[in-house]
Amino acid sequence: MAGKKVLIVYAHQEPRSLNGSLKDVAVAELSQQGCSVIVSDLYAMNFEPRATGKDITGTLSNPGFFNYGVEAHKAYKKQSLSSDIIEEQKKLQEANLVIFQFPLYWFSVPAVLKGWMDRVLCQGFAFDFPGSYDDGFLKGKLAILSLTTGGTASMFSKTGVNGDFRYFLWPLQISFGPEMASEEERKRMVASWAQRLKTLWEEEPIQCSPPWYFGQ
Amino acid sequence: MAGKKVLIVYAHQEPRSLNGSLKDVAVAELSQQGCSVIVSDLYAMNFEPRATGKDITGTLSNPGFFNYGVEAHKAYKKQSLSSDIIEEQKKLQEANLVIFQFPLYWFSVPAVLKGWMDRVLCQGFAFDFPGSYDDGFLKGKLAILSLTTGGTASMFSKTGVNGDFRYFLWPLQISFGPEMASEEERKRMVASWAQRLKTLWEEEPIQCSPPWYFGQ
Repeated sequence: MAGKKVLIVYAHQEPRSLNGSLKDVAVAELSQQGCSVIVSDLYAMNFEPRATGKDITGTLSNPGFFNYGVEAHKAYKKQSLSSDIIEEQKKLQEANLVIFQFPLYWFSVPAVLKGWMDRVLCQGFAFDFPGSYDDGFLKGKLAILSLTTGGTASMFSKTGVNGDFRYFLWPLQISFGPEMASEEERKRMVASWAQRLKTLWEEEPIQCSPPWYFGQ
Repeated sequence: MAGKKVLIVYAHQEPRSLNGSLKDVAVAELSQQGCSVIVSDLYAMNFEPRATGKDITGTLSNPGFFNYGVEAHKAYKKQSLSSDIIEEQKKLQEANLVIFQFPLYWFSVPAVLKGWMDRVLCQGFAFDFPGSYDDGFLKGKLAILSLTTGGTASMFSKTGVNGDFRYFLWPLQISFGPEMASEEERKRMVASWAQRLKTLWEEEPIQCSPPWYFGQ
């Protein structure tokens, strides 16, 4: 939708992978719609996944007993988080839509993307207490997980080797097993994603339930 | 149990945290039992969480199109994975029991521990296809997730702000909200963990169900 801002948080090492194609088609389709699109290419940025004392640039509030959550919350309020975190927070704050584009690693996001979540979505910014996850800066934003799997869809069914994917993810867009698919099928996956992006803004937001809370 | 080998994969920045105490008490109790205990202290090791081409020391099988899973599988077979991965695989291979000790970050493991899982548990080592996750080197090993949360137990109940923890974890040992607990309560958490470790070897292994498959 024209004028909307989109952030794509992209976690794949290979530009020519299906993940790369899905990211590219999203950039093309959404730009075409008149959105402004920013990509955080986590591997290319060599994004730091570890949550450590380096994330706090000022003095620690309790140097003798390091509590990451407490220190990050205080640093957020004092604007003394490390610059890579502040930059991602700015992008996220301005975005109307966030797309996470990644291959499934061990039933979840790759570590580099988990690190983005751990470090960027700190208390004060993404949520606060007392209150709930509904109150943060993320309120009113749309989010889509667009992911690929190593296994086929049947491997992720109730009787498949991986079990029903609903057990571990509340899925929004899954491209099953591109490595085992034909070139034709991979093209269909990219086209189906592009197609969905066309009518994205008309979709009803899903009810937020565990395991996904993301500020709606 | 005397003679058993134990690997503790520990992901906390602060030695004096409750996670640190739970790790220490496990080392003490299990050593006391005659086990040999090794700790992988991921933050202290500055363990690399990102899955990249650096993990493959030899020539890539397809340098023009990097597929991490495929390259890691082949490198495992050729023994050309990076030394930090090989070292962790050795520890894991020899262990009868693996304990993951960590604080819950965004309903899952911290990125540094997710990276350990992504990189160490590669195809060929931890599982293989055709087959299932039951056939790998992890067969017959015990695993315990021992984790702490930021919220209290009621915040993780069906009606709590975080929802029922069974939605996102198959829990084995949870220390709820040490930061909100009294010193006395924190001591009880450590004691309860130590107590459980005493009779650990007699426990019936749980049925492996999604979302946790771990080689039993």
